[in-house]
Amino acid sequence: MADRDDLLAANDAFYAAFNTKDYEAMDRVWAESVTCICVHPGWMTLATREAVMASWAAILGNPGQGKILPGAAIVSIVGETGIVHCRELVAGAGIVATNVFVREGGGWRLALHHGSGVARMEG
Amino acid sequence: MADRDDLLAANDAFYAAFNTKDYEAMDRVWAESVTCICVHPGWMTLATREAVMASWAAILGNPGQGKILPGAAIVSIVGETGIVHCRELVAGAGIVATNVFVREGGGWRLALHHGSGVARMEG
Repeated sequence: MADRDDLLAANDAFYAAFNTKDYEAMDRVWAESVTCICVHPGWMTLATREAVMASWAAILGNPGQGKILPGAAIVSIVGETGIVHCRELVAGAGIVATNVFVREGGGWRLALHHGSGVARMEG
Repeated sequence: MADRDDLLAANDAFYAAFNTKDYEAMDRVWAESVTCICVHPGWMTLATREAVMASWAAILGNPGQGKILPGAAIVSIVGETGIVHCRELVAGAGIVATNVFVREGGGWRLALHHGSGVARMEG
């Protein structure tokens, strides 16, 4: 289960970087070896590391940005890829997120984040 | 590039199953070996194969369901996992989709589909 624990720790590090508005930590979360893809709720796809990190600079620099409460993670590991699908609660709004990690330098780095709003959060 | 072509063919097969409302073909698209995860735009996460296929039965059985025009695919292959992130145009509405495939029986099968609406489609 160490692999799964490491993957969940990497997922937690993503949300910790978000919640502490720590751009440097967010930069360490994201992969260097593959195309980075990010969809913020309602946004078009960002598909370069530069575009993804520029979006985080704007979001983390926004004084009005609330924290994310993540939960209900579903975890799959297939070879060199780890998928964490979870819920996010942001200022009372329900979001579901797909986070795809790849192995890099002995750890898990985020290759894809896709967050989207749900009409009604249940359970 | 054969691997990439096979992955794009699997992605095309997903949209072909949708557009021809062919439940049996949709059933063949989805993985058997891993947790199946599906987010339809605005829906909560479906996280069992049974729940995912039940949703397709409802969607494909809906006479009012329009076709999807997919495009702008971004492809990453990492070991046994293939990621296709693309746009979907459905009845003029813009959607972005993350499709994660895994290798099964020599082919690519869909393990995760996450579609979400965008406020404004560009490019």
